[in-house]
Amino acid sequence: MEKIKLTLAIVLVSISSVFAQLPDPGFTIDENTAIVITDPQNDFLSPNGVTWGVVGKSVTENNTVDNIETLFKIAQQKGIKVFVSPHYYYKHDHSWKIEGALEALMHKIGMFDRKGALTTEGFEGSGADWLDKYKKYINDDNVIVTNPHKVYGPESNDLALQLRKHGFSKVILAGMSANLCTESHMRDLVESGFDVSVVKDATAAAILPDINGYEAALVNFRMIASHVFTTEEVVKELKK
Amino acid sequence: MEKIKLTLAIVLVSISSVFAQLPDPGFTIDENTAIVITDPQNDFLSPNGVTWGVVGKSVTENNTVDNIETLFKIAQQKGIKVFVSPHYYYKHDHSWKIEGALEALMHKIGMFDRKGALTTEGFEGSGADWLDKYKKYINDDNVIVTNPHKVYGPESNDLALQLRKHGFSKVILAGMSANLCTESHMRDLVESGFDVSVVKDATAAAILPDINGYEAALVNFRMIASHVFTTEEVVKELKK
Amino acid sequence: MEKIKLTLAIVLVSISSVFAQLPDPGFTIDENTAIVITDPQNDFLSPNGVTWGVVGKSVTENNTVDNIETLFKIAQQKGIKVFVSPHYYYKHDHSWKIEGALEALMHKIGMFDRKGALTTEGFEGSGADWLDKYKKYINDDNVIVTNPHKVYGPESNDLALQLRKHGFSKVILAGMSANLCTESHMRDLVESGFDVSVVKDATAAAILPDINGYEAALVNFRMIASHVFTTEEVVKELKK
Amino acid sequence: MEKIKLTLAIVLVSISSVFAQLPDPGFTIDENTAIVITDPQNDFLSPNGVTWGVVGKSVTENNTVDNIETLFKIAQQKGIKVFVSPHYYYKHDHSWKIEGALEALMHKIGMFDRKGALTTEGFEGSGADWLDKYKKYINDDNVIVTNPHKVYGPESNDLALQLRKHGFSKVILAGMSANLCTESHMRDLVESGFDVSVVKDATAAAILPDINGYEAALVNFRMIASHVFTTEEVVKELKK
Repeated sequence: MEKIKLTLAIVLVSISSVFAQLPDPGFTIDENTAIVITDPQNDFLSPNGVTWGVVGKSVTENNTVDNIETLFKIAQQKGIKVFVSPHYYYKHDHSWKIEGALEALMHKIGMFDRKGALTTEGFEGSGADWLDKYKKYINDDNVIVTNPHKVYGPESNDLALQLRKHGFSKVILAGMSANLCTESHMRDLVESGFDVSVVKDATAAAILPDINGYEAALVNFRMIASHVFTTEEVVKELKK
Repeated sequence: MEKIKLTLAIVLVSISSVFAQLPDPGFTIDENTAIVITDPQNDFLSPNGVTWGVVGKSVTENNTVDNIETLFKIAQQKGIKVFVSPHYYYKHDHSWKIEGALEALMHKIGMFDRKGALTTEGFEGSGADWLDKYKKYINDDNVIVTNPHKVYGPESNDLALQLRKHGFSKVILAGMSANLCTESHMRDLVESGFDVSVVKDATAAAILPDINGYEAALVNFRMIASHVFTTEEVVKELKK
Repeated sequence: MEKIKLTLAIVLVSISSVFAQLPDPGFTIDENTAIVITDPQNDFLSPNGVTWGVVGKSVTENNTVDNIETLFKIAQQKGIKVFVSPHYYYKHDHSWKIEGALEALMHKIGMFDRKGALTTEGFEGSGADWLDKYKKYINDDNVIVTNPHKVYGPESNDLALQLRKHGFSKVILAGMSANLCTESHMRDLVESGFDVSVVKDATAAAILPDINGYEAALVNFRMIASHVFTTEEVVKELKK
Repeated sequence: MEKIKLTLAIVLVSISSVFAQLPDPGFTIDENTAIVITDPQNDFLSPNGVTWGVVGKSVTENNTVDNIETLFKIAQQKGIKVFVSPHYYYKHDHSWKIEGALEALMHKIGMFDRKGALTTEGFEGSGADWLDKYKKYINDDNVIVTNPHKVYGPESNDLALQLRKHGFSKVILAGMSANLCTESHMRDLVESGFDVSVVKDATAAAILPDINGYEAALVNFRMIASHVFTTEEVVKELKK
């Protein structure tokens, strides 16, 4: 009995240390790899956006705006495909009968609002529009803009389909915000069988007195993704 | 110009305070509400399970084992449907070519392993089996066991379908582990249009030196779900 | 042995006759019921559309254009929600590396082409635009236009989510074309747990020398849906 | 005006002839190609199965049982991965509140019934079991049995995930029954971005007085898949 207990203790210690040394499967960039950017839009990244009051500090600390631009820029230079998954809300989305906490808030503050899918009235420069400095990249031929996602993840848009139809099975993920849309994209792309890495400083999140969205995201990126890069690291790999 | 800055400042303050008072949409339990339990299995909840070394502290602190039992018990008493979404791995899952960090670890430590889907050899009492004290509940007629999920979320099993086919649109979610399977279930059920609440002490997670899975889950439960209950609160509501 | 054979024969006959009397589960319209219309666009329904040469005969025989209008009209009168799932292709869809037969054809003939998701240039009156006579209905408040589907089914758009978020669990389905987008919508909505009926003469399909898409659709509507209506029948029910 | 009409007529004729010559994108078998077999179970393929009275004629005419065996056999010889997507119903599936026509029938006649997911009691030789002659192939290491699908398609099981996790993006599809599970698998795999071909005589379907499921399937295989093979043709390709 003593022996069994001892063995068990050793097993537990060894598992605990296995866990402490959480494996890092790694991520090799190859011709089947695309970049995915979630929500590179004013409402998250511009000081005029409706969430700047809560995400601004994290965006500034991480240097998120420049880091996302760095990814767009090297992709343009190298001809790497970038898939942008935007977030738009229309009038009919405001009549949803079922809403979680942040969904209720997003609708309340008019986040990502557009007049309609078949009109561009009022879109230019709005919170739903791209950050101005990203437009020259997003309008280029290496960038594919998918249908908008409607909650946080890509379950209801064509991101996974577009990636597959273009031959991609590996994804380098970045964008806003870290623990909501970016993380839900990471999780659902993993469930769809993609090999997913995340760029941890080309994202940011809401930080509130009791809620640190960015710290939460870092935990889950580390546990779920194949690898977590910094922008500097991924650029170095992409330049090879 | 000064005026604009001032207005902007007021707007930002007001948004920040809106955020600080993150809305709580609430969750009313009715006849369309079911309970969903993820992974009530030995490998998470038994001291003999392969992850006890890292989740045991959180399971103990939250009183998770008893709290999940409390949910099973009241559901049995009241005839409330419970959907259990288990986690099993077979031999062929060990030959996956694409694995994130925790997936690699789970396969390495033989977590949730079964000999096959069409054999029960070696299952009884294994890490993949139900916690012994839950069996009398799970074997009852009010409990529906779905196909196993294969990564963390229900994207690849029949949980959403079973809920819909049985007429449920609202979910009270609990089980293991908080920031992985439970949270991925929360996120994907929300993307499928379910109204989802979470029971925050009928779950637990791995806590490691630099990684607190439970804290991460609390952040995302609060931001994404319609409401976060304690076991005591939800039981009070269910008794009404 | 003779007895067993005889019993078996009786069983088989009885199963065959059960099948011959394929059950009709029926479909009761209630407050959880919405109408879904696929592809009410020029390329299918206008004599100027790119597929008229092959679908025109079926559209004309079924009186499809008027029957779809009848559904839009009564929905407008009664305030019934209609979800329109359109079909658009952008420049990037023409670089797909994987295409089935009809996908290859649709891209070849420029079907449903739009200049981009964020521009309306050239859209008005194009093959991708709504049939002109439907615009006064589609622009009304009871109609919700979802993201475009990208192959045939709603797997990659927000139709199921919008239905659920608005509280609908039952669908009356019509639109174009019967055995492709309409049928793929029927199949995937059933897989998502919706109760689905189809209006068999508010749809039509390509009829070619060796391929009768409409006949194929009728077989599968009958076997898969909960009920198959004619426009006249469904209008009678909706008027109640 | 006359000129426009003439041009239009020419355009229509040319489109019609494009359609008549429906493109055949073709399907090249390579190392990313797997075979998928739906429902190779007694209830469809054995004279004792509950549907033999309606599918037996089609199964016999197509030589379906032998053709599916041919696929299993060559896959075993060549080490090609085969994914089997089975169809099982448990007690709880019989309490679904929403059922289409065939779903209602399947439950009525006890098709694919099993006592439970965690018991094999009564399974051996039942309608839900594999056709006896396939067991020696299915039990081999090159065959992966997924979770059961629950309606017709793979939306609620792990087929797509298993294919992706094992590195496959191309599928050769066969099994039962042609216009229901096989076709729903074809459609949803296409929506998930797989390149799908179908083996038209390694499948069969219910043929009733007014309903020819097999003819319907042939129409949709031809229009939706990348290529339609005969067993002989695909074996020739696989032997290369």
